[in-house]
Amino acid sequence: MRSFFKVKRAEDIFECLGDIKPLGTEFVSTKDALGRVLARDIVSSEDLPGFERSTMDGYALSAKDTFGASEDLPTPFNIVGEVRMGEIPNFDLKRGECVLISTGGMLPKGADAVVMIEYCQMVGDRVVEISRPVSKLENVILSDDDVKRGQIVLHKGSALRPQDLGVLAALGVGQVDVFTKPSAAIISTGEEIVDISQRRKPGQIRDINSYTLGGLCIKSGVEPIYLGITGDRFEDLILLIEKGMSQADVLLLSGGSSVGTRDFTLDAFSSLEGVEIVAHGVSISPGKPTIIAKKDNKTLWGLPGHPASAMIIFDVFIRWLFGRLCGRLTPAGYTNYAVEAELDRNIESASGREDYIRVKLAHTEGRWLATPILGKSGLISTMVEADGIIRIDTNTEGLYGGEKVKVRLF
Amino acid sequence: MRSFFKVKRAEDIFECLGDIKPLGTEFVSTKDALGRVLARDIVSSEDLPGFERSTMDGYALSAKDTFGASEDLPTPFNIVGEVRMGEIPNFDLKRGECVLISTGGMLPKGADAVVMIEYCQMVGDRVVEISRPVSKLENVILSDDDVKRGQIVLHKGSALRPQDLGVLAALGVGQVDVFTKPSAAIISTGEEIVDISQRRKPGQIRDINSYTLGGLCIKSGVEPIYLGITGDRFEDLILLIEKGMSQADVLLLSGGSSVGTRDFTLDAFSSLEGVEIVAHGVSISPGKPTIIAKKDNKTLWGLPGHPASAMIIFDVFIRWLFGRLCGRLTPAGYTNYAVEAELDRNIESASGREDYIRVKLAHTEGRWLATPILGKSGLISTMVEADGIIRIDTNTEGLYGGEKVKVRLF
Repeated sequence: MRSFFKVKRAEDIFECLGDIKPLGTEFVSTKDALGRVLARDIVSSEDLPGFERSTMDGYALSAKDTFGASEDLPTPFNIVGEVRMGEIPNFDLKRGECVLISTGGMLPKGADAVVMIEYCQMVGDRVVEISRPVSKLENVILSDDDVKRGQIVLHKGSALRPQDLGVLAALGVGQVDVFTKPSAAIISTGEEIVDISQRRKPGQIRDINSYTLGGLCIKSGVEPIYLGITGDRFEDLILLIEKGMSQADVLLLSGGSSVGTRDFTLDAFSSLEGVEIVAHGVSISPGKPTIIAKKDNKTLWGLPGHPASAMIIFDVFIRWLFGRLCGRLTPAGYTNYAVEAELDRNIESASGREDYIRVKLAHTEGRWLATPILGKSGLISTMVEADGIIRIDTNTEGLYGGEKVKVRLF
Repeated sequence: MRSFFKVKRAEDIFECLGDIKPLGTEFVSTKDALGRVLARDIVSSEDLPGFERSTMDGYALSAKDTFGASEDLPTPFNIVGEVRMGEIPNFDLKRGECVLISTGGMLPKGADAVVMIEYCQMVGDRVVEISRPVSKLENVILSDDDVKRGQIVLHKGSALRPQDLGVLAALGVGQVDVFTKPSAAIISTGEEIVDISQRRKPGQIRDINSYTLGGLCIKSGVEPIYLGITGDRFEDLILLIEKGMSQADVLLLSGGSSVGTRDFTLDAFSSLEGVEIVAHGVSISPGKPTIIAKKDNKTLWGLPGHPASAMIIFDVFIRWLFGRLCGRLTPAGYTNYAVEAELDRNIESASGREDYIRVKLAHTEGRWLATPILGKSGLISTMVEADGIIRIDTNTEGLYGGEKVKVRLF
C-alpha cells in the first residue's frame, strides 16, 4: 500500500493545468449556437439600425416647426403622406409638413423628430394639429444608436446567450466561428460494480458514476463517451484507457475508493507513455483520493468511487477544465454566481483543507435558509437531497449558524 | 386605432393560465433524461446499498472483541481471510477472528464493525494487533442506510439533475417516465423584417426575434419550430398561425410594435375558431403591448416587436408556462434563485405597473454591484450588455442606490 505522495492544494492544481488550451474551432449555424463559445470577436460590419427610425406611432416632422405648440394654440401641419414600413420614404418635407409614421418606420428627408399620436388631433382629411412641441431627435433612434460599424459587439471567449444570437442575427451573421465542443470518456472501475441492465447480487452495486458524470458533462456542454465498466484486470483497464484517450479530450475514470483500486489507477496512468502525474491526492474534502494526470493537452482523472466525492471534484476542477477546453473565459475556483443564504446551524471543519458541504435550501420570510446535509459521502441519497454546496476555506475552522454563506447550486 | 381593452396585471395572467396542463408522458433512457421532468414518483424497489458495507479499508470484526484495546495493550486477532469485492464473503467469524476488507466490501457474518488500517499492526502472517476499540457499526453502512425499499426517492414534477440520474442508476431504473417536451412555433411579422440570409435595404431590419425566442426556448428545454416571417397580408398570417397551432403547443408571434401591427395580430387571433383573448396589454414594462390568447391547452402570444420587450415577456410568463407544460413544479412570478447585488444608483419607476430593469453585474470587494443599463427597449445592444434583470414592484416608485436587489440572470 502506498500513501499519497503528491497531495496538492486546489490552487496548485489550477496552476498545473493552467497551460491547457482550447480545442480547435468550427463554424456552426447561428440558430444552433446557443451555449457555444465564440472563437473570435464579432465586429459589426454595419451601423444598426442603419437608418433613422421612429420609436413611436405618430407624425414625423421637423422639430423646429413645433416650437410654441400648445393645447391652447396647437400648430397645424399638412399631412403629405404615410411612411410605409420597410421602405425608403419618398418625401422631402417642407416647412409645416408632416407624414404619418409607425414605430420602426424610417424618417423621411426633412424630418428630425416624431410627435406621438396622443398629441395630435385631425382637423379635416389632410391636416393634423400638434398640441406639444418636440425637441430634435425626440422619439427617434439614430442610424448607429444601437451598434456602430467597427464596434466589437461580442467578445471571443463568451458563451452565446439567446440575446447574443439576436445580435448576430441583427448583423446578418448566419454562421459563427466557435470553439469545438470537448468530449469526455467515462470509465467505471471496480470488481463490485455492475451495469444497471444487469441483475445485482449481494455485495455488488450498480454503476452510478457513469450516470452522474455523464449528466455533469452534458450540463457543461461536453459530449460524454460511455466506455463502461472494467474489473481488476490491469490489461483490460489499460486498453480501455487507451481507447478513451484516443477518442476523447478528457478521461474520467472513477474507481472504487479502496487503497488497492487507487494504486491500480495510479499504476495504469503511470504506465502510459508521456503521461505525467500532476496530483496524487487533493487537499479538499470530500474527494481527497483523486489522481490527476496529464498528457499534452489531455487530462486523465482518477476520481473517487463515491458518487458524491466524484461530483465535488467535478464541480471544483473539471467544470473549470471544460471551460478552458471550450475557450471560455472563466476564472478558476469558487467564484461563480451563487445564492446567498443563512446557515441554520454550526458546521465544523478541519483546517488545512477545503471542505465542501452539501446543503438544502428553503425560502422562508424572504430569505434563503441553508441546512447542511449530514451523511457519509458514499450515499447517493445525500446528493439527491442537496440543492447546492458551500465551501469552507482552508484557513477556516468552521462556520456559525446564522452566518451568511454563498450556495452554489448543484 | 383601438386602445388596449383588456390590460391585465401579471398575477391575473398567471391565474387565467392556471388551468394549463402538462402534455403527455413518454419513456426515455435514463442516460438521455437530464433536465426532463418526472411524470411519476420514483419508489425504490430495494434497499440500498442492499448489504452491510465497509466505508474504510481495514479489518472487519466483532466490535465487542475490541473492548479494552489500546496502544499499550493491543488486542490480537486471527486473520481468517480477505473479503473479495463484489462477492458474498464465505466466512462466519468466531471470537478473536477478523478479515481484511476494502472500502465498499460486504461485511461477513459475525462482523459488525471495521477497524481502520491505521490502527492495525501485523504481528506475523495471520495475526493483526488492534490498538483502538471500535463501537458497533463503526465504519459500516447498513443495508438500507442510503435508500429504503418503498421510499420515494424522486418526486413527480422534478427536473432530473445529474445526481438524480445517479440514484435512478443505483436503483436499476434504465428507462424513466417523463413528461413530453413541449414545442413552440415561432413567427415574426412586419413588413420591415427580412430574413438574415437576405440583403437588407435601408428601412428594413433583420429578423432578430426568431433567434432570441428560439434560444430562450432551447434554454427552457422546449423545441423551437421556426416558421419564418410574414408581411402584412392577413390571409398569409392566418395560414401561418394555423400551421403553428397544428404543429406546436405554444405559438410565439412577434410583431412590429406599431398599433397597426398589434391590431392585425389581435384580429388574426380573434378570427380563429375557439380562441379566447386572455389579455390585450399587460401592466409590465417593457412589454405592455402583448396579446395573450388561449385555445384549449394551447396558448398564442402576440409579443412586442422590440427584442428586449419580447425577452422580458418570455422571462416573466412564457418560461413559467413552459414549466407548466413540462409538468414542472415551478411557482409563478419572480421567485427563482437570484444573485443578490447592490444597486449602484437610483432608479425611478412609475407606480401601477411592474418595471423590469436590465442590469450589468460587476464583482468588487466581495460583493456584486448592479448597474442599470439605460437605453430604449428597441436596442438589441442593451440586451447583450445586460447580465440580468431586476424587478420593481407595482407599488414601488423606485429604488435607491445602495439598496440590495435580487438579479435574475438573463
